[in-house]
Amino acid sequence: MTETLHAPPRQFDAAFRTLFRDLVLWRRDVRRFRRDAIDPALIHELLELASHAPSVGHCQPWRFVLVESSARREAVRSSFVRANAGALESYEGEQRTHYASLKLAGLDDAPVHLAVFADEAAAEGHGLGRRTMPETLHYSVVAAVQILWLAARAQGLGVGWISILEPAIVARALDVPESWTLIAYLCIGLPVEEHLDPELDRHRWQPRLDVERAIVRR
Amino acid sequence: MTETLHAPPRQFDAAFRTLFRDLVLWRRDVRRFRRDAIDPALIHELLELASHAPSVGHCQPWRFVLVESSARREAVRSSFVRANAGALESYEGEQRTHYASLKLAGLDDAPVHLAVFADEAAAEGHGLGRRTMPETLHYSVVAAVQILWLAARAQGLGVGWISILEPAIVARALDVPESWTLIAYLCIGLPVEEHLDPELDRHRWQPRLDVERAIVRR
Repeated sequence: MTETLHAPPRQFDAAFRTLFRDLVLWRRDVRRFRRDAIDPALIHELLELASHAPSVGHCQPWRFVLVESSARREAVRSSFVRANAGALESYEGEQRTHYASLKLAGLDDAPVHLAVFADEAAAEGHGLGRRTMPETLHYSVVAAVQILWLAARAQGLGVGWISILEPAIVARALDVPESWTLIAYLCIGLPVEEHLDPELDRHRWQPRLDVERAIVRR
Repeated sequence: MTETLHAPPRQFDAAFRTLFRDLVLWRRDVRRFRRDAIDPALIHELLELASHAPSVGHCQPWRFVLVESSARREAVRSSFVRANAGALESYEGEQRTHYASLKLAGLDDAPVHLAVFADEAAAEGHGLGRRTMPETLHYSVVAAVQILWLAARAQGLGVGWISILEPAIVARALDVPESWTLIAYLCIGLPVEEHLDPELDRHRWQPRLDVERAIVRR
């Protein structure tokens, strides 16, 4: 890689920026997957690119668990069912009907299950930048997930992030070190359908907000 | 936008994927900025694209604060100086010398300061997906930051994420609602220099790790 380190800075043109915007707009949280197997080399390529995410103190705390055993997938599924039932209880009437109809889990069909953890015990980075905002350790892992997500979409793959899970129970079911914290559980595979609008928008759960409402000046 | 909702799915080709990989690899955490002003329309474009990030329950909890007042910037700078002094105390000898030489703050030169918050009180999304993993509210904001970061780089801009800050003090200094939690403080501007290798790698603080070490199968 040494020769490229001294290459002139990479420029990106307007045509690329238009495509990148399309990539961001077409990235969806996919819940309905085709069961077709995905080439493991392609998944490896996504993980490699994700590992170029920014991380606090360059500590690279992401740990990727490819969940392949059907017994472990079943344990994750059970956790989802329990957490989902609890979530349903907290909604009433029409909201509850909406919620139940959103078919939140691609867990049963997605060929690839990827649990992404943060290693709280990672010595890399020597703690730099984490003293006053230790949560940046987790944020670094989220950055890696976001890069993986965009890279997957550029390959025609869909990603669904399942957060209706009991994180400690999932960590135990996957037999990972005690110092690993679950950040994201991702389903990956070919999407059954493609959309430009978020599913929760399409199903009238929550429309997009005008970004103007989120910008203030001080 | 209605007509595009029914457009055929967007495909991305190998040429785009190569450029996207370059974008990820050339995204750096920039600390040395030129003082040239940045067109506010360009910053707005970045924020708009960032607002297409995924968010839990589509709750879109990101709040962007453009920090323009010199008094408020000075308050942030003071927080950095205090937090940085505390951080220095926790390193010894050679590590400390390294640390001090890393020139962590672009705060003095970057023309744009952007504080990014999560609104804990956002009613949007109706709490969906946050019951067992409430931290996903914050993670949604991190996803927006990551998209903004890549989009900025595609425009030739550099972004530096400052985490050596006291988050509650910064929130107070910026006079934001009590329900807003500081997720990231970003310096944005034209970089003085461009690099393919992370600064902390180049300065031998922490080398890149082989992604193989971060992948396990279960």
